[in-house]
Formats: sequence, structure tokens, C-alpha cells
Amino acid sequence: MRIDVLTLFPEMCEGVFGTSILGKARDKGIVSLNAVNFRDFSGNKHNSVDDTPYGGGGGMVLKPDPIFAAVEHVLAETSAEAGTAESAIDPPVKPRIILMCPQGQTYNQQIAEELAQEQHLIFICGHYEGYDERIREHLVTDELSIGDYVLTGGELPALTVIDSVVRLQPGALGNETSAVTDSFSTGLLEYPHYTRPAEFRGWKVPDMLLSGHHANIEVWRREQALQRTLERRPDLLETAELSAKDKLTLKRLQEQTSLNNK
Amino acid sequence: MRIDVLTLFPEMCEGVFGTSILGKARDKGIVSLNAVNFRDFSGNKHNSVDDTPYGGGGGMVLKPDPIFAAVEHVLAETSAEAGTAESAIDPPVKPRIILMCPQGQTYNQQIAEELAQEQHLIFICGHYEGYDERIREHLVTDELSIGDYVLTGGELPALTVIDSVVRLQPGALGNETSAVTDSFSTGLLEYPHYTRPAEFRGWKVPDMLLSGHHANIEVWRREQALQRTLERRPDLLETAELSAKDKLTLKRLQEQTSLNNK
Repeated sequence: MRIDVLTLFPEMCEGVFGTSILGKARDKGIVSLNAVNFRDFSGNKHNSVDDTPYGGGGGMVLKPDPIFAAVEHVLAETSAEAGTAESAIDPPVKPRIILMCPQGQTYNQQIAEELAQEQHLIFICGHYEGYDERIREHLVTDELSIGDYVLTGGELPALTVIDSVVRLQPGALGNETSAVTDSFSTGLLEYPHYTRPAEFRGWKVPDMLLSGHHANIEVWRREQALQRTLERRPDLLETAELSAKDKLTLKRLQEQTSLNNK
Repeated sequence: MRIDVLTLFPEMCEGVFGTSILGKARDKGIVSLNAVNFRDFSGNKHNSVDDTPYGGGGGMVLKPDPIFAAVEHVLAETSAEAGTAESAIDPPVKPRIILMCPQGQTYNQQIAEELAQEQHLIFICGHYEGYDERIREHLVTDELSIGDYVLTGGELPALTVIDSVVRLQPGALGNETSAVTDSFSTGLLEYPHYTRPAEFRGWKVPDMLLSGHHANIEVWRREQALQRTLERRPDLLETAELSAKDKLTLKRLQEQTSLNNK
């Protein structure tokens, strides 16, 4: 998988690319990670990439030219690598070209799993500025938002999406099972975890976890996961995969809650 | 404002702390940003900070000791700075101690504005591992999630929250008005932006924006913002501040949409 991030702050990406799972995945050859400074494609001697908005108002707007030119440079590079330099307009692997912006579709684990199947992702990250609408209409294939909060740029959102996608690549995580047992992957929030010491400042680990009775522990953990999801994120229960036993447990937990509230 | 990030990957934070708005805010003395490696507080000669979970199962769990010790070190430091070293247990400024985790409250712009009023934020970032439940129960004041997707660690989420909070500090953004006119701040998605050139590869800027008639442009932009929100995020309209005129516009847009669908 190849990932390119178009940004005015490549140094924000480089530090993260070299660390932890992303750094290891890069070292193993699972993913190629590139930060591309689109100021290099400004096409003017002042290296300007933004300008004032038509129609007035504050703020600056990213011009279409440098973004289109930077994307086309990346496409030409991948075509050349594939040995088909003449087909830069129709490269062998169609990349997803993703604009990080507050107006985008709200990112979630389903989209992560979809993007993890792709061979080439290009992220476009604005900073402070808005994007010229023609970038949105004529260049990008996806618009994504990581949540309903305002940030100074698209870099942290792009890195967040990249982290979630790369960890799903086969071999990226040390323990192959880790990727499927996390929160959201199972549709429920995780049950509580405890490790040593068994007593810390007077607070003890639940007896159940010290019992050594694995079947009972599994039942306890599933009930804890259901209870936590019910308390904190009942919306997730609508789409979670629930067994008939889970549904009975949930019914009991709901009845207990309504009794406690009386 | 002081912000401490407890992490096993301080280098992931340092790169971002020095760049863009965060770097400028730090240089201006608006915010102090510190990455604290909680491995330094392991309290054992192997520097181990995690252990296997009680009750079995895969993965590792962060032990309570290093996290409690690292937080208490930060509290002692702020008390000492306030000239009241003896009151480390009850420091003059009560910090918010924020655990980044998928089980947390979903972060949004309202929480950003609330956190922006605080004087001291401490973020706890796990990596791969789960947290010992006693950290959650007896140390933290808040649990936050930036969205419904699985990441390898809490660092990118913490940096995302920090970026959104620091940009709200007075003086952090160059243009004081920028913070209030963005998406989510007004409750609507932004209207489309255009800048030079007026024609790019045959795609033109809308005539309205070249008309010079500012009152009409304002009306057009508001209508575009309403239409985009209606199309992409109708859920935001339930909480957006809408004038009587906005409501009439929305009604007309909805009627047009249902006509177009016939």
C-alpha cells in the first residue's frame, strides 16, 4: 500500500511516520508513506498557494493549481513505477484522493476497513485556509471528517485515518488477533482490564478475575462489555452483533438499571 | 494554560508541538506544552509499564503505578511552581486529567470550548494496551474519544484535542475572527470558497461572487451553507442557530429537493 499526504507541514507527518506501528509497517515494507509539500507545485515565483476569496470575507483559500499539480505529480510517479509512464492520466491503480475537511463524511471503522483494501491513498490537508471548491468538485474521490470539532489543519486528521488503516494491514500488528478484538471492531465497548498488582492503594482486582475459572470469566467480561456499552454508548447496541444470550443479558441489565433509578 | 501529555512516545508529540499554531502559541507564551514519558515512572529496574491481564486473554494492560506516579509528579511540579510545594495533594489549580480511549465521551466542539477555559490539562495516552481499570476509576476526571475508529494509541487523539483547544486561546490565531466563523462554530457547514484563477481548466467561479454586490453575496453564501448542511449533515440543523429567514430558505430548499426527486 502506498500513502501520500499533500501538506504544507511535511515535518508534522514525518515525525509520526517514523514512530510506533507506522514506523514498523514502513520498515517491514507493508506501506510506503510520503509527505509531499504542495508548495513545491505553486507554479509561481512567490511560492504562494493561497489567495483571498472571491466575493470578499476573511481568511484565505487554497488555490486549485498547486493541489491539482501535486496530485498529478504523484500519479505520474506511480505510473512510472508501474512501468507505464505514458498512461499518467489513467494510472494502473486508481488511487482514492481524500480531502480532509469538516464538511466530509464522518469517519468510522467501516470506512477504515474499506480504505484498508485500497492500494493507493492520497490525502489532501489544508491548513487554516478553505479549499477552492473546484478541488472538491473535480479532483477528490472522498471527503472525510474525523469528528465535529474545529482544527487548524488536516494533518492530524489524515494521520489519524492513516494510523487506523495501516494497523489493519496484514502483519502490521505484532499480534494478529489484536485488530479484531478491540472496541468498535466487535461493535461493543471493551470490558474492564486489570493487571498487577492485585491490590493497589487499597483498590482490589475483582475476585472473578483471580478465580482461574475461564468460562465464568468469559461470561463476566461479556456482561461487563454489554453493561458499559449500555451505559455509555447505547447507540452502538443497534448495530452490534448480539447473540440470543446477549439479548437476555441486556434485558436483565436494563431492568436492573430501571429498578436502581426508582 | 499548561498541557502535559503522558505517553510512551514523546517524540510523536514533540514534532507536532513545535509546528504551526501550537508552535506559535508556545513561542508567544500562551501555552506550555510538555510530553512526559511515563516509562520514567515505572518504579522497577526493567522499566516495565504493562503486564498481562488478570483473567487471561491476549494483549497487555498498562499498570496503575507508573500512570499515578507520573500524574503526581506533574501535580507536584505545578504546586512547586505556584510556590506551594507542600500542597502537592491539593494543588492550587485542579487540572482536568483526561484519558484518551474508545470508551470515552465522543469529543465535540462544545467540549473543546469547555476545556479551553481550563488552566491545566493532563492527557494520558495508552498505546496498543488497555488501561488498568483503577486508573479510570480513581485518577482521571474525563474520558474522551475523538471518534468511532480504532487507533494504535492515544497520542494522535490527544494532539487533536490539544490543537482544537489551543486555537481557541485568545491570541493563538492570527485573525481573531477566524475562530468563530468556521464550521461547527456556527452550527452549519461552510459555504463554498473560490479564489483565483476565475477560470481553471474550463471550470469557472460562480458569477455571483464576481458581481461585487456584497449583500447578495451574503444571501447566496448563507443559502449555500444551509443547502450543504441539509444535504450532508441534516443532524446539525437540529442544533444550529437559525433565523426566521433561514427557516424559510430551508423550507424552499427541501421542497426543491423533493421536486427533483420526483
